Amino acid sequence: MLGNSPVVLVAPDSFKGSMSAAEVAAEMAQGVMAALGPDITIIQCPFADGGEGTLDALLANWNAAAHRSLTTDAVGRQRVARYGISNDATVGIIEAAEANGLPHVSDIPLQPMRADSHGVGVLARRLLDRGVGEIVLCIGGSASNDGGTGFLTALGVRFLDSENRVVEPGGAGLAHIAAVDDSDLHPRARQVRWRVATDVDNPLCGEYGAAAVFGPQKGATAQDVIALDHGLAQLARVLEARTGVDITQRAGAGAAGGMPACLVSLLGAELTPGAQLVAEVVGLQEKCERADLILTGEGSFDAQSLRGKVVHGVLRLAPPGRPVVVIAGMVRLPAADIAAAGVAAAFSIAQGPSDLQGLIDHAPRLVREAAAQVGGLLAVGTRRSDIPETTGTQVAAALAR
Amino acid sequence: MLGNSPVVLVAPDSFKGSMSAAEVAAEMAQGVMAALGPDITIIQCPFADGGEGTLDALLANWNAAAHRSLTTDAVGRQRVARYGISNDATVGIIEAAEANGLPHVSDIPLQPMRADSHGVGVLARRLLDRGVGEIVLCIGGSASNDGGTGFLTALGVRFLDSENRVVEPGGAGLAHIAAVDDSDLHPRARQVRWRVATDVDNPLCGEYGAAAVFGPQKGATAQDVIALDHGLAQLARVLEARTGVDITQRAGAGAAGGMPACLVSLLGAELTPGAQLVAEVVGLQEKCERADLILTGEGSFDAQSLRGKVVHGVLRLAPPGRPVVVIAGMVRLPAADIAAAGVAAAFSIAQGPSDLQGLIDHAPRLVREAAAQVGGLLAVGTRRSDIPETTGTQVAAALAR
Repeated sequence: MLGNSPVVLVAPDSFKGSMSAAEVAAEMAQGVMAALGPDITIIQCPFADGGEGTLDALLANWNAAAHRSLTTDAVGRQRVARYGISNDATVGIIEAAEANGLPHVSDIPLQPMRADSHGVGVLARRLLDRGVGEIVLCIGGSASNDGGTGFLTALGVRFLDSENRVVEPGGAGLAHIAAVDDSDLHPRARQVRWRVATDVDNPLCGEYGAAAVFGPQKGATAQDVIALDHGLAQLARVLEARTGVDITQRAGAGAAGGMPACLVSLLGAELTPGAQLVAEVVGLQEKCERADLILTGEGSFDAQSLRGKVVHGVLRLAPPGRPVVVIAGMVRLPAADIAAAGVAAAFSIAQGPSDLQGLIDHAPRLVREAAAQVGGLLAVGTRRSDIPETTGTQVAAALAR
Repeated sequence: MLGNSPVVLVAPDSFKGSMSAAEVAAEMAQGVMAALGPDITIIQCPFADGGEGTLDALLANWNAAAHRSLTTDAVGRQRVARYGISNDATVGIIEAAEANGLPHVSDIPLQPMRADSHGVGVLARRLLDRGVGEIVLCIGGSASNDGGTGFLTALGVRFLDSENRVVEPGGAGLAHIAAVDDSDLHPRARQVRWRVATDVDNPLCGEYGAAAVFGPQKGATAQDVIALDHGLAQLARVLEARTGVDITQRAGAGAAGGMPACLVSLLGAELTPGAQLVAEVVGLQEKCERADLILTGEGSFDAQSLRGKVVHGVLRLAPPGRPVVVIAGMVRLPAADIAAAGVAAAFSIAQGPSDLQGLIDHAPRLVREAAAQVGGLLAVGTRRSDIPETTGTQVAAALAR
């Protein structure tokens, strides 16, 4: 039951395509506050699952602005990409797709054999130069299949062939790699904690490997897939010879064109499910424990939501009996499933017949108004005893802006 | 706050075009029960505002089946119409439109000068014969403009011209009425309490009178309007001469083609706003006082809802501080207005982008699921202290059918 001066944690995902997690959180907070009055405490914690929007969510939590750096896209063309640093300067965050994401090379034919992760490494070098102690790397949506060799190249590593010549970056060169020279590796690269958010279990090579499963969506033909898979296997052999770690045995190493291969082998990076990693960075567990009620949400609340997405991440951390309420653009789960998942209640922002465009156009107001209704209903359980009564007129005034 | 073994009153309107008030109430009850568990008490009170659906709502409250009687439509053609009797046989209910409603004469050209309320009187005679002590008359939607002369004719009254000839029923004859002969009035007609539900304030005659305002929608030309208005004025003079009551001074006498004129003058009928009248018949005030929470709703929750409709009727009777929650097909009021009206929370049954037909098709499930979410949220205010905890699995089981 909501106690005296209840604490409400607002921890939504973004509503993809219409609102960032921070915007959703702010509207939810305003709606709840309008209904429950000023005596409640609201903790705003924009949340994310390691995918698109994670950088923005962490920046919002840190109340920090994005940094920008000149870097390269997956085929080596210059572009400006964003990254983030926590306000205590200890944690850096990179969304790899800001540099080598597929959307940035959508203007030209896909080049799966050539694309690399060098541009992501450039951003990491910026973070090392700025002295952070921990780097969070969200690697989804990349166009490359280079096993992370481009990334490491940007940090000073050289990948050499059997005649000690530097191998050109990109998937095509992987099969020629015979040795790793890390003598010029960035001096801080092994002093920081590398944490990679990944939600796939795919191994580096083979039938379920990076090339076979994700290669085709990056433009790889059947022939390319075989060549890339062969190249990643060769890279794994070289890395094992250098470090003793057999990366082919590691679940998740096949994410993002095998980017974890070099990161794990050469830098000791940890692979963590995205929502869990973000939760740890923003201190979600501690916030859940402080809260009397937890409000979360996302664009579409569906079966996916309960498997590794934001809502699942919140449910996982909510202490037993702590109510979790979902506000979503659309609710696509039957009430029985919602209840069985441990969600106290889930509401769509739709207020009647409406099309998707209408919901997107009015999403901020609709989120705020839905949160006000949730707050109004929560007040039923608390009003007249635990907290000072909020009159309808006060709610109306608080909502009018 | 919801106490131990909370009582939830479920008092919705029908969702016009898709569900009766009783169906809505049953789905709401099931949803709330699923979420809050079996230890709550649910009072189902299908509600109505005196308009279409009132007969069904009262029958549902009485757990009674409709009676059927052969009668006539507005132009004298035979039809079977429904009426209701409370299970203690004390109260009868008639929806006038069941007999002389506009929809029943939509197959022929409208005949505003001829249409009468005789068929409604036939139903009233059935109720008198069956011994009820109180008759509730919902008069909206009628096709007639006869000042209630047809109705009284069916109860045995004769309207005579200056030469003591019986005047034919219908609006055309009103101007010729010179006297009322009630010597053959049904012997019980003055022993029962007549209560007329009306939501208009229009006077019998004049610029805002029955003929001028409502005549055109019943097919009256400008010439007809003048003739009908003249006739109603003549009727009023005759009634005043007979009873001493000047019915032209009575707000609401212009409803339903002036039907209240004869009912008030000759039978002492009371005019009452529909929602208030229905509330009294079903004992809504007492039920509101017993309830810890009141759940209501309707197809469209909009500005109209707060003016004499069902939701307004519920809000009017809810004791101060007693939370009222609305579940509607569509919510067309901003959150500020909802709060200012004293509604704790209002939710649409829409679960995302959806068209009206989809909402109608799935209305029962959507109402049930929305109510389950409301129940789930209410449990937040009560769970772990006041009532035994309901697990998600229990809710899932209760909802699965």
